Amino acid sequence: MTPGTLMAAEMAEQPQVIARLVERADAIAAAVRRVAPSPLAATAIVARGSSDHASVLGRYLLELATGRPVSLAAPSLHTLYDAHVDYRDVLALAVSQSGRTPEIVTTLTRLRDAGARGVAITNDPDSPLGLASDLTLWLGAGDEHAVPATKTVTAQLVAFALLARGLGDVPFDDAALTALPDAVAEVLADPEPARRVARTLTGATRLVVTARGLLYGAALETALKLQETTSIVADGLSSADLRHGPIAVVDRGFPVLALLAPGPAHADLVELVALLRERGAQVTTIAPGPDADLPLPDVPEALASIVAVVRAQQLAYELALALGRDPDAPEGLDKVTVT
Amino acid sequence: MTPGTLMAAEMAEQPQVIARLVERADAIAAAVRRVAPSPLAATAIVARGSSDHASVLGRYLLELATGRPVSLAAPSLHTLYDAHVDYRDVLALAVSQSGRTPEIVTTLTRLRDAGARGVAITNDPDSPLGLASDLTLWLGAGDEHAVPATKTVTAQLVAFALLARGLGDVPFDDAALTALPDAVAEVLADPEPARRVARTLTGATRLVVTARGLLYGAALETALKLQETTSIVADGLSSADLRHGPIAVVDRGFPVLALLAPGPAHADLVELVALLRERGAQVTTIAPGPDADLPLPDVPEALASIVAVVRAQQLAYELALALGRDPDAPEGLDKVTVT
Repeated sequence: MTPGTLMAAEMAEQPQVIARLVERADAIAAAVRRVAPSPLAATAIVARGSSDHASVLGRYLLELATGRPVSLAAPSLHTLYDAHVDYRDVLALAVSQSGRTPEIVTTLTRLRDAGARGVAITNDPDSPLGLASDLTLWLGAGDEHAVPATKTVTAQLVAFALLARGLGDVPFDDAALTALPDAVAEVLADPEPARRVARTLTGATRLVVTARGLLYGAALETALKLQETTSIVADGLSSADLRHGPIAVVDRGFPVLALLAPGPAHADLVELVALLRERGAQVTTIAPGPDADLPLPDVPEALASIVAVVRAQQLAYELALALGRDPDAPEGLDKVTVT
Repeated sequence: MTPGTLMAAEMAEQPQVIARLVERADAIAAAVRRVAPSPLAATAIVARGSSDHASVLGRYLLELATGRPVSLAAPSLHTLYDAHVDYRDVLALAVSQSGRTPEIVTTLTRLRDAGARGVAITNDPDSPLGLASDLTLWLGAGDEHAVPATKTVTAQLVAFALLARGLGDVPFDDAALTALPDAVAEVLADPEPARRVARTLTGATRLVVTARGLLYGAALETALKLQETTSIVADGLSSADLRHGPIAVVDRGFPVLALLAPGPAHADLVELVALLRERGAQVTTIAPGPDADLPLPDVPEALASIVAVVRAQQLAYELALALGRDPDAPEGLDKVTVT
């Protein structure tokens, strides 16, 4: 099989997968409202790896929507340390593509035993995770065969946006949701910018991906995807953390990917990009508008993560090919996570 | 001034700083019990950078002690996105060495305006953060002049242990707390292992630091400290996350630091170290007992982070010197964080 066949095919399914989820927006909203405790003390997200990165967007959107603290659960507290907890009035959202990551299933089970209401966000509603929940949000992304997760990650991002929309006010409207599948298709139909940027990165051994606020999770996912397909050491850092210390290692020619979208975090990123360029860094921008190196369609900041992650997949795919690697099966990676 | 003079002097103060905090253990416990909401819905920790790493230990200990979810706050929600939140029945713990990081002060102020009870963990009780809180836990670490934070970080770790002890059951006893200053002094009196390991790492351009559970925050801090003083690209990763993907970039000679201590996470780390050695990685262990490359005194797992971080400081210091750098003033780093 030609290298990258699986990953390319799965990336191409994303507009459809997202469209099917968006069609279910009102049903998902009604379901999560039925399950969520009222009053709500807090929301806890249980995830790992790529799912952890979708959770970072979820964390922001859910706190904006519910107004209550959102915690990213520490699974080892429940799987290793036998923590005695009281999770009454807590909504626990557990994310696992396969629904079979034992750590995630065990953690959700323990939190529900401690009083939490549990939602499973999974691609397999009959999985152990689905069976361990009060409500299953089925991603409907179909089987994923390439090792780098693509359509399941964007489906998770959309799922979090829909759960937040069900629980309160969110910074995007229904028209933007409906337009999302076309926005993703627009990115996929335009691979040339990713090819061009990939050619500038073939000599990189390390890079930093930076963003802030609503795009921060997309920066983490971009770093993971590049690292998975190319073995380049890639760090995702919030712009605030990058300024605070790691900027010391950014010198002439150091590659940095910056994710930007109009919104409250935009000015901070624009300033950081200028600072990085002053230091001689090789900055690639992922942002709406024709001036960006990797241009994004014009979508609200809260949904920009989704199109940015698709751009990142394209870049990871093109860069792996440019390096003579097979994006479908990076060395040393297995698909199933048993922790 | 001889390179590293400041950092060495500040590291040497740690037994005293910790002893003074431990002496206040009961007073701190009484104070935090007076301030904490009852019943407690959740705890939110507000921090950034090095303080963020101490918060990871805090996150585990506080959830074990209170049984309720612990959230690491996303400051940008409050400083940039104007989130409308209801933080009644939430205990907010804000950490800033200087007490002057505007983002941390603004976030604590907004959370208290939204109903939270706020504790400031700071080295300057008269700072804006101290003045914006219901209770100030003064670290009493004295001024810090070297750029890499040392005594303020270990003071923060101890502060979280003491706050958790005040709020419920913790996995260490008072005898272990009382013995902690001597354990730190024992590490400081024995710099030879760090010198020896530093000589094996002078050729490294990147490395991974791994741990799990109660030692995970120490792994993040170890990576930051090494990166700050040497410009080596250092990633802190939980052992679960390392197995799940990044292990693909670990090949022959790749340097990995593994932090271990007897406890529920120990078996997982022992297995991972064996796997990494099979792959030909250059593994350095930081663990209790004479067999470790960087040996630690025998302290409970919940307090092992503190002695492990002191070992990491030693290594960062020795490695910077071995590379001809000044640990006191790494290139490109400023002391004050304005985000």
